[in-house]
Amino acid sequence: MTETEFIALLRPFAGAGARDLRDDAAVLSLSQDGDLVLTHDVIVEGVHFREGDAAEDVAWKLVAVNLSDLAAKGATPVGVLVGYPLGDDAWDRAFAAGLGVALAAFDCTLLGGDTVKVAGPRSLSLTAIGRAGSVVPSRSGAKPGDGLWVTGVIGLAGLGLDILRRPGEECGVGSSPGRSLNMRDMFNPSLGRSQPESALVASGPGLRRDDAIAAYLSPQPRLVEGRALAPLVTAMMDVSDGLLIDAARIAEASGVAIEIALDAVPAAGEIMAAVTAGDDYELLFTLPANAPCPVAATRIGVVRAGAGLSLTLDGSAVPLPERLGYLHD
Amino acid sequence: MTETEFIALLRPFAGAGARDLRDDAAVLSLSQDGDLVLTHDVIVEGVHFREGDAAEDVAWKLVAVNLSDLAAKGATPVGVLVGYPLGDDAWDRAFAAGLGVALAAFDCTLLGGDTVKVAGPRSLSLTAIGRAGSVVPSRSGAKPGDGLWVTGVIGLAGLGLDILRRPGEECGVGSSPGRSLNMRDMFNPSLGRSQPESALVASGPGLRRDDAIAAYLSPQPRLVEGRALAPLVTAMMDVSDGLLIDAARIAEASGVAIEIALDAVPAAGEIMAAVTAGDDYELLFTLPANAPCPVAATRIGVVRAGAGLSLTLDGSAVPLPERLGYLHD
Repeated sequence: MTETEFIALLRPFAGAGARDLRDDAAVLSLSQDGDLVLTHDVIVEGVHFREGDAAEDVAWKLVAVNLSDLAAKGATPVGVLVGYPLGDDAWDRAFAAGLGVALAAFDCTLLGGDTVKVAGPRSLSLTAIGRAGSVVPSRSGAKPGDGLWVTGVIGLAGLGLDILRRPGEECGVGSSPGRSLNMRDMFNPSLGRSQPESALVASGPGLRRDDAIAAYLSPQPRLVEGRALAPLVTAMMDVSDGLLIDAARIAEASGVAIEIALDAVPAAGEIMAAVTAGDDYELLFTLPANAPCPVAATRIGVVRAGAGLSLTLDGSAVPLPERLGYLHD
Repeated sequence: MTETEFIALLRPFAGAGARDLRDDAAVLSLSQDGDLVLTHDVIVEGVHFREGDAAEDVAWKLVAVNLSDLAAKGATPVGVLVGYPLGDDAWDRAFAAGLGVALAAFDCTLLGGDTVKVAGPRSLSLTAIGRAGSVVPSRSGAKPGDGLWVTGVIGLAGLGLDILRRPGEECGVGSSPGRSLNMRDMFNPSLGRSQPESALVASGPGLRRDDAIAAYLSPQPRLVEGRALAPLVTAMMDVSDGLLIDAARIAEASGVAIEIALDAVPAAGEIMAAVTAGDDYELLFTLPANAPCPVAATRIGVVRAGAGLSLTLDGSAVPLPERLGYLHD
């Protein structure tokens, strides 16, 4: 069954802080000490990371994808618990070292966990606990008239994955199988408009390519931005499964329509590939129309009365792609 | 590498509440709202449960083994986060139903979690959060002169597993492969001494057999006992990997010697098999010599100055078995 169907079966057992299992994280309200935010993500070899990825990178990603959920709640990481499948010595040693690096980078400690031995692809679990600020944003508060904003560059991690999948080949060039990369749209991070074909090389040989690979291997949870935004946004979440599917989730949870101007999206690679790619871990949020945005981010759309997601390109309506993002279906 | 070696690599990253990664659970101290207890356990198909086990039973076990860690801390369950590998519809549906039953039984709610799709044996993770009482026992407070106590019957779950592994065969009878079962010692839950050979059947056809199977499939975390004991014990943990290995862990953490009188242990099945079998989820604890025990439990040994674990049978020293319990090594 699909994740959505499974969650529907579990919804009757959801507790007060579970936000009806419709959010990125749970909120545990304490009587005097404020709120704790809790999130639990599992990453799987061959799905969330590649079989050949370095153990240090996997450790970083395991921590980062969970802290990204805390970022979307404006929370400050406190500690993590890790479920780890023991494998070969070198991998275990490298993973432990990488976990230490990631925890230090985010000023977060290891609280506990469990190890197992299991055949088959590695499956690693992590629970992150954070302290909430005065407001814990949800997905459900977007109001007609709000602007839709996103941090960073969308599709960068997906592009990095494409590059890693085709070693030795110049990205965006040639008749490669798999996702089509369009050199014209390869990088337009700042303007959200098509750049000259030289955009990729213009910023220095290998630099942007490395940025894309780094975005895939070592995502940076937007913790600082999340804390600054939490008291101001009407809704917020992290973009883990794809910009379009996650925007559609905000629309659904908030009972509103969202219209995204594709030409405004700071995207890496071909635009429709970028907005449906997963793993970006940027923050997607709505702000009242005239509210200033306190962090570096791009306004990419508008919230309207109604329901559903719609797209425009240079002012004209564009049909939704068949697949809005990554779903475990 | 072994779990012990891996944990040693992680120890430098352990936070204040991690208890140096030497305990069953972490303690998150809040400034005014008391302490939270957090634990994270993973169970794996083919290791912690059998491939053919019913999904409802797997759900129960996943919840129970984690709540057993909370019980050992005297904590009251608040909520859980679950990492679940989506499989076939019928299994997913039965698991969801079983999760609901288990959560209701322990007055605990679902806070959140994650689903993945993964090939190979199922690996399920759960993080349980509990509210601590005024005292959170550790493994490290046992003092020379204390008595060593255990709740329930040791080896019952291991016996249940043996029965399940050999369907159609009368347990404890015949020249079966695998662990040897001795009818003489099959059940001596109350006295801790050898019972007549009729002990198994004496309590009604199939009844004790069903108890053993139930102990393996549906362990009962000792939450009520844990809360009653927490303010009184000098050390406490749950018996998950085997009585001997867990007693040795208390001895090591407390810097003391522990001597167990095997004839005092309420054991199911052959005594050495019982005291090295996992999955019992009983509470093992130390109490000052003359302190009354507030729950149904059996005094099985004594704490002395020194180090290590030793065994006696009817007053005579008995060598330790080569394997003290279950280790992920």
